[in-house]
Amino acid sequence: MKIYLAGPDVFLPDALEIGWRKAEICARHGLIGLFPLDNVIDLSARDASLDIFGGNEAMMIEADAIIANLTPFRGSSADAGTVYELGYMAGRGKLCLGYCNDPTLYADRVRKFTTVERQGGRLADADGLTVEDFGLSDNLMMIHALDLHGCTLVTPRQAPADLWHDLTAFETCVGMAAGRLGATLARASS
Amino acid sequence: MKIYLAGPDVFLPDALEIGWRKAEICARHGLIGLFPLDNVIDLSARDASLDIFGGNEAMMIEADAIIANLTPFRGSSADAGTVYELGYMAGRGKLCLGYCNDPTLYADRVRKFTTVERQGGRLADADGLTVEDFGLSDNLMMIHALDLHGCTLVTPRQAPADLWHDLTAFETCVGMAAGRLGATLARASS
Repeated sequence: MKIYLAGPDVFLPDALEIGWRKAEICARHGLIGLFPLDNVIDLSARDASLDIFGGNEAMMIEADAIIANLTPFRGSSADAGTVYELGYMAGRGKLCLGYCNDPTLYADRVRKFTTVERQGGRLADADGLTVEDFGLSDNLMMIHALDLHGCTLVTPRQAPADLWHDLTAFETCVGMAAGRLGATLARASS
Repeated sequence: MKIYLAGPDVFLPDALEIGWRKAEICARHGLIGLFPLDNVIDLSARDASLDIFGGNEAMMIEADAIIANLTPFRGSSADAGTVYELGYMAGRGKLCLGYCNDPTLYADRVRKFTTVERQGGRLADADGLTVEDFGLSDNLMMIHALDLHGCTLVTPRQAPADLWHDLTAFETCVGMAAGRLGATLARASS
């Protein structure tokens, strides 16, 4: 069974190494990890970004599940590319898993970037835009997509020392995916 | 034909009014706009966020297309919930359209939030994470999803005075959606 490994990990200086580590953890659980950087792309080509898109989409179509790294990226929410991919896999009815190495709740995280005040019955930021305050880790669409299309978001009790390289929460997801995909396989063959 | 109207518009203090304006523009083009806040949710209910998710997902399943407001939200990228929904609709093979009222390129926008430097062959932010530099408005997954699953992102040449209430780019999307959905309808009935 194949798992698409989504996340801003591809933006790390040691992205290839992270990909290998994730694939190795998948292999230990009897799964095949598909990491975006496994696609060989000529970054100097005119259509490099389109080639990356095509490669990632093909991988997602091939995969049975996604494990999305939803650790906040350049702001209070997860990386936009990863979130798009989670939505794409949910739309295709694939098994959806995700983790977030920052255990902070969304409303508290937003406070690090802007003033948050109660205005009438809602929380609002400095621009007057509502701040979701449901006690969730991020926007409700992603969080409940995991609840309803796979497994509940995995977060550590405390943020690990290295937010981008600690793969404990990732490995928990892999274990859950192996359990779920194994169970599906057992049902299919019974 | 029904269009799901995705965007952080739901977080505006006058969200309901924006929804009505968007639906009215759709109606003028012969389309039905489905706005998340059309779902009546008891926000004091224990499972309010789950009810919102369920309502939005049902609307997306009902819709033929999505128009996503990808104007940057609390940072350098689009709103995570909106991006999830764009992915979900792309995954389901629906027509995907989007607009961004900020015409800035992604790499330039990131510069407003963090230091961006060239490190070897790539642009990197203050944390050493790669900054996508493909001359696109946002993360390549969303931008090329629009190119390949619908219509190219609509951006104004100059940012409108009111980023959150100007619906010019939105109306351009509605016109394109009407053209595409009308053409599909004509093909289906011929």
